Amino acid sequence: MMDYILNGENEIYYECGWSSDNAIFLSLSHARYVITDGRYTLDAKEKANAEVIEAKDLLKKAKELILKHKIKKLKIDPTKWNYKDYTSLQKVVNLQNEPNMSHKKRMIKRDDELEIIKEAVRLGALAFEEFKNEIEEGFDEYELSYRFKEKLTLRGRRALSFEPIVAINENAAKPHAEVSEKRLKKGDLLLLDAGIKYKRYCSDRTRTIFVGDNISMSKNQKFSNKEIQKVYDIVRKAQEKALKAVKVGIKAKELDKIAREVIEKEGYGKYFVHSLGHGVGLDIHEWPYINSRNETTIKNGMVFTIEPGIYIPGAFGVRIEDMVMIKDEKPIILSEEI
Amino acid sequence: MMDYILNGENEIYYECGWSSDNAIFLSLSHARYVITDGRYTLDAKEKANAEVIEAKDLLKKAKELILKHKIKKLKIDPTKWNYKDYTSLQKVVNLQNEPNMSHKKRMIKRDDELEIIKEAVRLGALAFEEFKNEIEEGFDEYELSYRFKEKLTLRGRRALSFEPIVAINENAAKPHAEVSEKRLKKGDLLLLDAGIKYKRYCSDRTRTIFVGDNISMSKNQKFSNKEIQKVYDIVRKAQEKALKAVKVGIKAKELDKIAREVIEKEGYGKYFVHSLGHGVGLDIHEWPYINSRNETTIKNGMVFTIEPGIYIPGAFGVRIEDMVMIKDEKPIILSEEI
Repeated sequence: MMDYILNGENEIYYECGWSSDNAIFLSLSHARYVITDGRYTLDAKEKANAEVIEAKDLLKKAKELILKHKIKKLKIDPTKWNYKDYTSLQKVVNLQNEPNMSHKKRMIKRDDELEIIKEAVRLGALAFEEFKNEIEEGFDEYELSYRFKEKLTLRGRRALSFEPIVAINENAAKPHAEVSEKRLKKGDLLLLDAGIKYKRYCSDRTRTIFVGDNISMSKNQKFSNKEIQKVYDIVRKAQEKALKAVKVGIKAKELDKIAREVIEKEGYGKYFVHSLGHGVGLDIHEWPYINSRNETTIKNGMVFTIEPGIYIPGAFGVRIEDMVMIKDEKPIILSEEI
Repeated sequence: MMDYILNGENEIYYECGWSSDNAIFLSLSHARYVITDGRYTLDAKEKANAEVIEAKDLLKKAKELILKHKIKKLKIDPTKWNYKDYTSLQKVVNLQNEPNMSHKKRMIKRDDELEIIKEAVRLGALAFEEFKNEIEEGFDEYELSYRFKEKLTLRGRRALSFEPIVAINENAAKPHAEVSEKRLKKGDLLLLDAGIKYKRYCSDRTRTIFVGDNISMSKNQKFSNKEIQKVYDIVRKAQEKALKAVKVGIKAKELDKIAREVIEKEGYGKYFVHSLGHGVGLDIHEWPYINSRNETTIKNGMVFTIEPGIYIPGAFGVRIEDMVMIKDEKPIILSEEI
């Protein structure tokens, strides 16, 4: 394999089991180096599966190593390096562009990664269940979000995959809703989209629930409003159909189409404004993207979300999201209920 | 002024009073454009002081505008754009590199910015005071940090400037300590470094306190350990001397030297492992950097921290930090006690 250079926390962690917010990774045929500054070298030497090099100016040190080892060609991701640093490297070595180099590698997970992700999803789902008892009429989205994060993070002991979405009624119609002072009342629709990190791998899940006397985080929801129930059932059917279709050999775009057709047939096609899903791993959004254009064939070791949604502007939104993985050539749907 | 192109949330917010995580700003002699995607255009049209252009592919749209308006030269920050996008722009226009273009502009604050920052500091200091009553023996750094953030963010209603540092005894000897399960006991040293955002501008403050019967967030601290008290008094003296020296016309590196000399004279020079301070504004770290190499002259409208520290590995660390600004040509130290 050709020598390569990488930056980025998850990119470097994947290579050597350690990273910091100031590091460069260099893989040469005879050795692998992680270059970082004095704040991090002790920690790196304990944990990194690579030779640790301390430097104040990381890029300068990388160039020194490249020159010292007489490297002629080096693979690099041109979307990950700024123009200044890239052109500085270019002065000492012939750079070969490979966009998304790390995402390509990380798309196929090893079994140990799959097991970690399974556990991340289990812990994330548990937090949804625990949050159920915290939901009270009169709380605004800020307070709900705060209590949700308290459960998700175990009071700050665990990281979030991303800032959760907590959206009531018409706020749920914005796929990227921000929390507001809107208060919850009985009979409301509540959309919850959140995930946690376990051993640095992400989970991701969305539930849209009815705030009645008995709140449930299951996908069996009964809304008092008929139109909401109709939309919910369509989204659920679209998700189930796509989940059931997941298998080795199908294309990402075919999965998107299966879900989209269910929604289009019911006349809500224009309200399904995003793609069906995305890969999940060290990054919350990674390869493979499950959209209408992606020709990628689903393979063993892939992990991704299936999350159709219908968003009626000014009224309400419904999204249901679960993660799925292919292990031992077979799909595993990471949801209790399927 | 030459036409320019910008990315980055704070960079764009500074130009037009609005930004999103997916936007490009283009300033041409006859018009200013903010290009963003469909998720954000409604919000942008309400708030942005620029013409809002909706696009799926922001870079493609920027290139179209450049071609349409026959722009020949465009200023750009080569440290802020990735190689792929930079070289793509380069195909349609002659790019003129200006590293740190936005930081240079934002280094001198307007009076309305200074007032916002003053308020950010006041609110941040209040949160330190409120946290005082939450500190209990037996809590670990995670729990202390969680309770501190609860006060700083008003249970999630306000953003942090950065993830706070909460470090007990020897953990405080790491300038970038991560929270741990170390538990607080009476007689401990506790280092607290935190800030909040008010109208998007940051505050930043550090106190090192003695955990005795009456906890105080003031800079008057009495430690039971004599060496700690000695080191504390040296850091305090270094900070006071530097704070008193702040004025229009002095150089950043001179301020660093004033504090460093106090510490060096006492024989602790090698334990003051970082620079004296940094600018604060929309970014928590911005220009001017107050270090031993920066020739920048302090001018009206600048805002920065003065934060000397002494870190004894394996034993303890002390840092005291306050913000200072120059308004109406006069320094204002943003601390109650000076």
